[in-house]
Amino acid sequence: MIPPEITTPEVLIDVDILDRNIARMAAATQARGLRLRPHAKTHKVLEIAERQLAAGAVGLTVATIGEAEVFAKAGVRDIFIAYPLWVTAPQAARLRALAEANSITVGVDSAESASFMGRNLGAGAGRIAALVELDSGHHRSGVRPEDAAAVARAAADAGLDVAGVFTFPGHSYAPGMPLAAARQEDEALRRGADELAAAGFTVRTISGGSTPTASLDPADSFDPADSRDRATAATELRPGVYVFGDAQQFELGRCEPADIALTVASTVVSHHRTAAGEPGRFIIDAGSKVLGSDRPAWASGYGRLLDHPDARITALSEHHATVEWPQGLALPDRGELLRVVPNHVCLTMNLVDEVSLLREGALAGRWAVAARGKNS
Amino acid sequence: MIPPEITTPEVLIDVDILDRNIARMAAATQARGLRLRPHAKTHKVLEIAERQLAAGAVGLTVATIGEAEVFAKAGVRDIFIAYPLWVTAPQAARLRALAEANSITVGVDSAESASFMGRNLGAGAGRIAALVELDSGHHRSGVRPEDAAAVARAAADAGLDVAGVFTFPGHSYAPGMPLAAARQEDEALRRGADELAAAGFTVRTISGGSTPTASLDPADSFDPADSRDRATAATELRPGVYVFGDAQQFELGRCEPADIALTVASTVVSHHRTAAGEPGRFIIDAGSKVLGSDRPAWASGYGRLLDHPDARITALSEHHATVEWPQGLALPDRGELLRVVPNHVCLTMNLVDEVSLLREGALAGRWAVAARGKNS
Repeated sequence: MIPPEITTPEVLIDVDILDRNIARMAAATQARGLRLRPHAKTHKVLEIAERQLAAGAVGLTVATIGEAEVFAKAGVRDIFIAYPLWVTAPQAARLRALAEANSITVGVDSAESASFMGRNLGAGAGRIAALVELDSGHHRSGVRPEDAAAVARAAADAGLDVAGVFTFPGHSYAPGMPLAAARQEDEALRRGADELAAAGFTVRTISGGSTPTASLDPADSFDPADSRDRATAATELRPGVYVFGDAQQFELGRCEPADIALTVASTVVSHHRTAAGEPGRFIIDAGSKVLGSDRPAWASGYGRLLDHPDARITALSEHHATVEWPQGLALPDRGELLRVVPNHVCLTMNLVDEVSLLREGALAGRWAVAARGKNS
Repeated sequence: MIPPEITTPEVLIDVDILDRNIARMAAATQARGLRLRPHAKTHKVLEIAERQLAAGAVGLTVATIGEAEVFAKAGVRDIFIAYPLWVTAPQAARLRALAEANSITVGVDSAESASFMGRNLGAGAGRIAALVELDSGHHRSGVRPEDAAAVARAAADAGLDVAGVFTFPGHSYAPGMPLAAARQEDEALRRGADELAAAGFTVRTISGGSTPTASLDPADSFDPADSRDRATAATELRPGVYVFGDAQQFELGRCEPADIALTVASTVVSHHRTAAGEPGRFIIDAGSKVLGSDRPAWASGYGRLLDHPDARITALSEHHATVEWPQGLALPDRGELLRVVPNHVCLTMNLVDEVSLLREGALAGRWAVAARGKNS
């Protein structure tokens, strides 16, 4: 399954699976009457953004001004920087330059950051749209929905074009949580949008999404005795990881192995001698410097082996992963190539400058990770 | 303490502290009569390698052929790739090219990998030195010391120039473990070297080291009633992290805050509203894409704030860190700059293309992270 001419570790992207994932999310979002604005921090690749837009995405989501610059330069015209930016004078100059030829939206979650941003943007503020960030239960950034109107007013006073609200239900990343988080996300968006409307704002955008919740319709889980309107509050979704899938999504039940488009080709470099009756152990050459080291408490380990569901990655160093192998099974030979599914694929893409493409198991070119490392 | 013109997140290196750390390790190693071969995977910077060599290092350690190529191209002539390489034909060609003008040493921990490497190197094998990797208790790669001679014989049969043994006492990375691990490291090196000598090999190099153990003399802890030779078995040490220090080293008691040369400048971007009587919480813009997400179970969090020892980093996303602030203390204002000490500095350097230099608190240029991302 891995082209033998690969030098490991190497990120492989199965383009057929990638295209299927892009088409499936586009169709599902369209069927629900929602706009799709995929989060490009996951892939950071121009060719993938192009495919997402061709499949109907209205624009992109990014995390930083630097990512926005890379995609804007490549011709993406509608970009939301989904982050509560603290915009200094140099960053304001970059935002103004971006907004000259593009539709640019930023996040805001306090009156202080809105005022500071507005002051530094000066007359350019009116060209920048702002969405108020809501905390829908993740308890990271974002305000409570009942405080959204005050932030919106500060943003408007600062000269920004207030367009609506957004949230990221990051607490969906835990077993049993995706549906509950999708409901809380929906409630927060509905309430936040209502608050803005009641304060006199025209709410054009109600933006939600995360890969775990994007394919769930929160209305499905509502009590049928509840007589409120069942339609999803959101007008757009911002999933990112769905293009590739990863071990977290698999272990949360949000993707199947056949949906996983990105793996890291690795080589068995060492066997660890274990005592009789213990599971076997060996070392592969994909470590934290290519897989990333995110490891939620509920995960089975530091990633999965795509073709060996019973194996566990029990330890990770920079260039070694320790694989525990089912007891009694012969270890793979040294030199054997194995496909690792990272826990969190956004970190993997940020670690490599280029990726190798596969079509029907054969190498089919390379893509640059154009926005790699654009942290600011 | 942070130059206000910085756009965050940004890696800052205090060059005066860096130089002091380099000088101190060089002096300590020399005082013990040991050679110093610093691990350059930590920094990946040509200018830092140059400083280490100028301070007396005999050469560099690296983790991959790609890292060796970057440093060799810059003129470093003596490089040990401290990894049990599985050398395919394309990798053998790269090793042969490296060995034309440089002294190149590789790790080997099995007869199979030695034979495979020798076959692919062909007549070039004799120009490559090999050290047998020993497992001194970390239980990652490496063989038991009693199996070292068999691997050495296979390496010699494959045409490699067997030079000695090496180990990495990675189990030193836990509270209370550095001294115990240093003793096990010393025992493994002594036994492995003895096995090679008994099998007729001339042991030129006995290589140990990790930052937690490098400054410890294992002889200090031996039972004085034990009459064996007290000299350290190692002839050279390979610490890496000592140049910068990081939160792991600090929490293991292996460095002081004043020794920490690398921090990540970050901005307070959001305050999280908490209930009365709870510790305050806020969000900074340094996340896993610049700090790395290594977080051993014994760590206090996902890094430390250098100037706020009582703060804890309790959660990490790609572009957000959640900081828990001591109860009753006012939160830093939004927009305030804070210095984060990453848990594991080797990951941070591998995430950025350039770093900013500080001298006496002022910006003093930038260095490229020349070997960033060279995973193979």
